[in-house]
Amino acid sequence: MTTLKNSAETSPAKVHSLQALDLSQIIEPVKDDLLVVEEWLETNLVDDNPFIAELLSQVFRAGGKRIRPAVVLLSSHASLDASRPFSRLHIILAVLTELIHAASLVHDDVIDSASLRRGQETVNRRWNDRVAVLMGDLLFAQASICLARIMNPVVVGIYGQVLGDLCAGEIRQMRQQFSTELTFPDYIKKSINKTASLFAAGAHSGAILNANPDASVSALKEYGLNLGLCFQIVDDLLDVIGESNKMGKMAGSDLRGGVLTAPALYLLEEKSAASKRLEELVRSRDVTSDEGSEEALSLIRNSNAIERTSDLAKEFANKGRMSLLTIAPSNYRDSLEALLDYVLTRAN
Amino acid sequence: MTTLKNSAETSPAKVHSLQALDLSQIIEPVKDDLLVVEEWLETNLVDDNPFIAELLSQVFRAGGKRIRPAVVLLSSHASLDASRPFSRLHIILAVLTELIHAASLVHDDVIDSASLRRGQETVNRRWNDRVAVLMGDLLFAQASICLARIMNPVVVGIYGQVLGDLCAGEIRQMRQQFSTELTFPDYIKKSINKTASLFAAGAHSGAILNANPDASVSALKEYGLNLGLCFQIVDDLLDVIGESNKMGKMAGSDLRGGVLTAPALYLLEEKSAASKRLEELVRSRDVTSDEGSEEALSLIRNSNAIERTSDLAKEFANKGRMSLLTIAPSNYRDSLEALLDYVLTRAN
Repeated sequence: MTTLKNSAETSPAKVHSLQALDLSQIIEPVKDDLLVVEEWLETNLVDDNPFIAELLSQVFRAGGKRIRPAVVLLSSHASLDASRPFSRLHIILAVLTELIHAASLVHDDVIDSASLRRGQETVNRRWNDRVAVLMGDLLFAQASICLARIMNPVVVGIYGQVLGDLCAGEIRQMRQQFSTELTFPDYIKKSINKTASLFAAGAHSGAILNANPDASVSALKEYGLNLGLCFQIVDDLLDVIGESNKMGKMAGSDLRGGVLTAPALYLLEEKSAASKRLEELVRSRDVTSDEGSEEALSLIRNSNAIERTSDLAKEFANKGRMSLLTIAPSNYRDSLEALLDYVLTRAN
Repeated sequence: MTTLKNSAETSPAKVHSLQALDLSQIIEPVKDDLLVVEEWLETNLVDDNPFIAELLSQVFRAGGKRIRPAVVLLSSHASLDASRPFSRLHIILAVLTELIHAASLVHDDVIDSASLRRGQETVNRRWNDRVAVLMGDLLFAQASICLARIMNPVVVGIYGQVLGDLCAGEIRQMRQQFSTELTFPDYIKKSINKTASLFAAGAHSGAILNANPDASVSALKEYGLNLGLCFQIVDDLLDVIGESNKMGKMAGSDLRGGVLTAPALYLLEEKSAASKRLEELVRSRDVTSDEGSEEALSLIRNSNAIERTSDLAKEFANKGRMSLLTIAPSNYRDSLEALLDYVLTRAN
């Protein structure tokens, strides 16, 4: 994570935000709400089967930073006014958002035959693909039940679209594997589908429940979208420059799977000898081997692509910051802003 | 299908219903609505990706009898009164019900590594497991979008529960594989989860949209539950006595997969030499081989289990018929009744 951190450290504008990089400090205003969310996540809404209960608690005990529920809770509080209290519905919205995220991870791991996630064995590895398919379906079903309980048709519509976006993004990614024809707009579209769409839903649905005016609903949606894009781009950057032990998964796993993300796309754009070589490695699928992926990673690491990717992430973080300006100041809004810096500078 | 047909033919009470066994005749009152449903099913609600559109149309062009949409449409019409017209929402309800069914089939085929469905290659066989997982997720997502459009919180709750039931039923079945300890209540519970729950949802949600009194909503729910149980039991019977070419899948596939259904359970209950032998074949997993499954099938076919299973299916069909008595007479109600006979005597 050297490049990102260094560039942040050398920028005086980042000094304040660097002090707020401790996630537990950022989420402090919604700490108690997050504990309730955690309880809900391990609650089996679907069935009294002990095996299912065990599987569920395994998925959620494996951890995760709960950034999405934090976004939901912070945005919900930030958009509350005195006439509408924070309610159980906001908690359910946070649970719903994490459930959809968890479900899509479980299915992604089947699709990618991944064996490690957050440093732990994946469901497909520990059990098998069959259990993992069902487990993902079950989590989606739990999410549907939460969505039903929220009883707000607009929110239902938003999350229905998110579910579609997730699949479309994954199918798009699968179809684009090992293709060096991928454009930047394709990449951004896929990143919105796969990641930012859920962040955006989580960030503005609370404001819808709070019956906020359209302007602040839109502002929070924009915030979530930009935070999500920033998150995905940093994720893609970490896959190139991160260390396997910190990430809890193998470095370079995107490239090995033929998935081209921002760093690779920037290098390909250069039309240099290095980009020509990267193109060869991808097209020939040599990139799937240890040597091939090492060579590809080192080509990218030694190019401008890292800095350009980092700049792109910062661009979305800044857009996210701008979106927050229409929201009334509060410690919740401060935390939403600090989350942008956290996401930008995280090392895993 | 000899046993079922014979027993129906020798019973004078069945003569009328046998004349109505032509499905196209039964669904005649909702024929035009079903055409609209068909158009919707091939419409991609999620994305403009041509590959996704191709996959979707492949899934739905493979056919299927559309019994679930027919149940939704017939029940919706049967419970309408003059003050509330049949609306687009009823069509969406029918589409939703078939989408959930289709999604669960696609994932079931991954879980069971099935290669044939309705006489056609399954998605996992034609493409691979990854595409099939995503395809199922996409269909579930399409269903969520339909559910959102219905904008009725009670209906959303019902279908959320159905999604959970489907997963719980499948997980339950997976955990019970090759166990000869399975009880009849376990089997019925699993059949409700896997099949009858969706039939019940489809049968009574239209009445909820029509703002029917509780009594007729409950009656239609009961009808759907019993129709669904009848459907599942006949399915399980056909797996034992049906011919592979008519079913569009291998006969005996449940047994080969270690899934015990009504016919096997009835034989096991007998505590005879034959049931002892079946128990051995299942426990030793010899039932997974060609010889083992042939031997098991022949043990079941030569026992009372076939007749008892057929009687059980009839029992649920009769309960379904009783449920309909509280619904006002109409050609739609007649068709719902005829569907019970159709399901009971179908050969595939």
